[in-house]
Amino acid sequence: MKILISNDDGIYAPGIRALYQAVRDLGEIDVVAPIAEQSAVGHAITLSNPIKTNRVYNGGEFFGHAVGGTPADSVKLAVCALLDHRPDLIVSGINLGPNAGISVIYSGTVSAATEGTILGIPSMAISINSFKNPCWDTAAVVARRLALMIQQHGLPEDTLLNVNVPNLPLDQIKGYAVTRMGRSRFVEVFDRRTDPRGNVYYWMDGALEQLGDTEQTDLDALENGYVSMTPIWFDLTNQKALPDLRKWNLDA
Amino acid sequence: MKILISNDDGIYAPGIRALYQAVRDLGEIDVVAPIAEQSAVGHAITLSNPIKTNRVYNGGEFFGHAVGGTPADSVKLAVCALLDHRPDLIVSGINLGPNAGISVIYSGTVSAATEGTILGIPSMAISINSFKNPCWDTAAVVARRLALMIQQHGLPEDTLLNVNVPNLPLDQIKGYAVTRMGRSRFVEVFDRRTDPRGNVYYWMDGALEQLGDTEQTDLDALENGYVSMTPIWFDLTNQKALPDLRKWNLDA
Repeated sequence: MKILISNDDGIYAPGIRALYQAVRDLGEIDVVAPIAEQSAVGHAITLSNPIKTNRVYNGGEFFGHAVGGTPADSVKLAVCALLDHRPDLIVSGINLGPNAGISVIYSGTVSAATEGTILGIPSMAISINSFKNPCWDTAAVVARRLALMIQQHGLPEDTLLNVNVPNLPLDQIKGYAVTRMGRSRFVEVFDRRTDPRGNVYYWMDGALEQLGDTEQTDLDALENGYVSMTPIWFDLTNQKALPDLRKWNLDA
Repeated sequence: MKILISNDDGIYAPGIRALYQAVRDLGEIDVVAPIAEQSAVGHAITLSNPIKTNRVYNGGEFFGHAVGGTPADSVKLAVCALLDHRPDLIVSGINLGPNAGISVIYSGTVSAATEGTILGIPSMAISINSFKNPCWDTAAVVARRLALMIQQHGLPEDTLLNVNVPNLPLDQIKGYAVTRMGRSRFVEVFDRRTDPRGNVYYWMDGALEQLGDTEQTDLDALENGYVSMTPIWFDLTNQKALPDLRKWNLDA
């Protein structure tokens, strides 16, 4: 199996190293990832600037390509230019912090897997449900297991697997749950400050708030100690809304 | 009606000026938009850096707030911090170039409207189907008309209206079509170059390729001279994929 690894925390992040160790014996592994942290970049791509690349070594051994761009850039560039073969699987992560609920649309980790899916390659994003003291070992075992599952079963057309792992020792994980993206929103707080020259600036901060029914959501699975697996795609059409819009009298 | 205007081409772009002129007599208009072009930033938000703002004047008259961030930042900051009232409607655009098919997921124009929708405010993105010699007047008439329609009918829950306008004089527009986001992909070309110091860099380029059935898609409407109106939301769960994933034997 040829596996391409990427992420949004950058090629030097511990999460991508943990992922690499977890899957390296499954086949031929390529690492192509942003040179610097790209959290919350969403599905940004770099069209107005050139994209630079560097070779990164780990203890004298070639580790991968660092890309001066976003997660989506990294996957596009890897598949279309850097690699001399097409990956069988793309895994993005392991992200420090969850990508569940509305966070999915801001997530660089998920966008790398989305880009892989658009390119027709089975893809998975994997994140750990904590920003502190991450249990990389647990998420690494899950990543390896699900990589093998995807090899065996494939993934539905145009669909990636968005995986979130509770931050628990492996023996405390309750199981695997197939979930939907939880309805939620960030309650934003903008901290207004003034710089030494009197200019105003803001820091964005906020907390995730769940909305509506939480049953079988990614957020709910994490809270209850289950690995969450959500099938995500990129057809954003709200099919249910089509008939209502057709009632608008726009021909008059 | 209180209308917030934003975009991704930046507060100095001609498209946002055309939009402002088109809707200014409909009520109280606020303009909050990125200070510089932010095309293809997707749903990026700025968490790791402070966000600066500036007041922008047009011929001595206050025009709006320029934001040192992304389209999604601009809308969040406007609604949560800059404005002293909640908008009744958010309009993002008029974008130079279409946001149809797979482009929707890379689009900063759409992300501003997505952010408005997440905040619970009816929102519309509007783009013109050309990068050259845009007929701003046509798109401005459409923007005004659909703003009034949204005022009258509202929008379905959690759903924004993504509007694409053919680049034609108004009397050559065939009508309005309610569409779905067309299945498509970019066929990427990376142009590999070497800088004067011998470092490799790439320019991303590509052409949109339609996939599968094109009937009733945004791309198809534009090709046939219709204004395309697509209901877009941000629940990315592929519901149809849930049963298949539940068949995986992960308890063993």
